[in-house]
Amino acid sequence: MRLLLLDDNFKGSGLLTLKGKTFRYLTKVLRLHVGQKITGRDKTGNLWLLEINEINNDSCILNASAIEKPIETTDSLPKNSNPLPSIFLFQSITKQKKFEQIIRQSTELGIKAIIPIVSKFSTKEKIREDRCQSMITEAIQQSGSLVSTKFEDTFSLLDIPSFWKDRGPLLFFHQNPIENQERLTSILSPEIKYKNIGILIGPEGGFHEEECNFLRKSGFHQLLLETNILRSETAAIYACSICQFLLTEPRTN
Amino acid sequence: MRLLLLDDNFKGSGLLTLKGKTFRYLTKVLRLHVGQKITGRDKTGNLWLLEINEINNDSCILNASAIEKPIETTDSLPKNSNPLPSIFLFQSITKQKKFEQIIRQSTELGIKAIIPIVSKFSTKEKIREDRCQSMITEAIQQSGSLVSTKFEDTFSLLDIPSFWKDRGPLLFFHQNPIENQERLTSILSPEIKYKNIGILIGPEGGFHEEECNFLRKSGFHQLLLETNILRSETAAIYACSICQFLLTEPRTN
Repeated sequence: MRLLLLDDNFKGSGLLTLKGKTFRYLTKVLRLHVGQKITGRDKTGNLWLLEINEINNDSCILNASAIEKPIETTDSLPKNSNPLPSIFLFQSITKQKKFEQIIRQSTELGIKAIIPIVSKFSTKEKIREDRCQSMITEAIQQSGSLVSTKFEDTFSLLDIPSFWKDRGPLLFFHQNPIENQERLTSILSPEIKYKNIGILIGPEGGFHEEECNFLRKSGFHQLLLETNILRSETAAIYACSICQFLLTEPRTN
Repeated sequence: MRLLLLDDNFKGSGLLTLKGKTFRYLTKVLRLHVGQKITGRDKTGNLWLLEINEINNDSCILNASAIEKPIETTDSLPKNSNPLPSIFLFQSITKQKKFEQIIRQSTELGIKAIIPIVSKFSTKEKIREDRCQSMITEAIQQSGSLVSTKFEDTFSLLDIPSFWKDRGPLLFFHQNPIENQERLTSILSPEIKYKNIGILIGPEGGFHEEECNFLRKSGFHQLLLETNILRSETAAIYACSICQFLLTEPRTN
C-alpha cells in the first residue's frame, strides 16, 4: 500500500473519519497503527499526508495535511518522477477474468485510459464495470501509480476514429505482415515525443481483414509483434510495455 | 491450440494412441473430429502432422507423419520465423498463484528458461514444480511457442554467478537509482546481438542493498525501470518484453 485514493467526501485538511471497506483495509489488511502515516491522493490529484489518530471498532480517524514536498511515509512512492506518456489502451473484450488481469497490469504500468472494444471476434460478454473500477482503485493504491487510470464506456471498433480524432498515433497489432510493413521504432522514434498514443489489442481470434482495412483507412498503424503469438492479455502488457519504454527511454544512438 | 507436445512414448511416424488427459483435451476441450489435423512437436524439437483417424470412448488414434515444410492445420503456427533470443528469467519466489501467472506469460513470450530464486525478501513458499511444469506445457500448446521453455531447480541468489558464468549480460532491476546508472539501451545496443541474456526480478519487497552490492560485484548490471513501481509478476513481463523487443527489433537509427 503506497497510496490511499480519497473519494468525493474528502474535504481537505483536518480530521477525516473512515468506515467500512477502507477502514478494514487500513486496519485489518495493512494493519496500520495509531501514529502511522500513509499518503493519500484526492480527486484532483493533490497529495495528502494522512496520520492515523484513533482506531475504533468500526471506524478510524485520520488527520490530513497537505503535502508540499515528497515525504517519508510507511511506504515510499515511486522514485520515477518523469511524467509517463499518456497511453490509451483500446482492448477488445475478453472474458471478465482475463479483462481484470489486463486492467490490473495496465493500471500498474500507468496507462491513462482503458477502453473496452467490441469487434467481430471479441468475446460476447458484458464487462462488469463495477468490478473493473474497483480493480483500478486497488491497483493504483497498491502500486502507488502516479496516473489516475480511467475506465471508459465500451464501444465498437468502428467508433474508434471519431473518439480518437487526431490525438496522436494509434497502433494496432496483427499477426500477419502487410506490404510496406511499418515498424514500431519508426513511428515512436526518439525525435518525436508524442503526448498521447493509442494501442488497440485484438481478441483471441485477432482482427478480421475488413477491420484491418477499416483501421488502416482511418490512418492507424498496423504493426506486427516480433514475438510468439500471444494471448490477448499478454499481448496487451507486451505492447504497453514496449511503447511506454520507447516513449520514456532516451535512446543512446 | 496450435501445438501438441509429444512425450517420451512417441515413436515417430505411424499410428499413435492417446488416452487420459491428452485424449480429453483434444476431443472434449478442442472438440477435434476425425479427419482434422494438428501439429505436434516431439522431445527433440521435430514437428509432426497428426491426423485424427478414430475417436473411441476413452482413446483416440492419430496418424503421425513428419513435416518437411510448414503446413496448414486447423490452426496456424506463429508467423514469426526469426529465432527468438535466449532469455533466462531468474524470478524471485512469489506466491504460487502469482508464480504460475509469470510462468504462463513468460512461456508464451518464448523465454528460454525460468529459474526460481530464493532471496532475502522472497516469499517463504515451496514452489510446486509439477504445477509449474504443466503450466509450461499448456502455455506452449496454446500459444504454439517455438521455444521449449525449461523450468529449472530453485536456487539461492548467491548461487546465480556460478550457474550463469559468462553466458552474456545479466540484468537486475531495482527501484533506487545508483551513481553512474547504466541504461538498458546501452547494454542491449543494436550493434551487439547477444545469444543469451539473463533477467533477475526481485520479490515484492525488492532486493536488499547487500544483495545489490553482491550482484554488482559479480559483474551484473543494475538497472532502473522507467515506469511505476510494479508488482513482481508485472515487472517480470515488462522486463522480458522490452529486452526481447530490443534484441529482435532492428533499430531504424
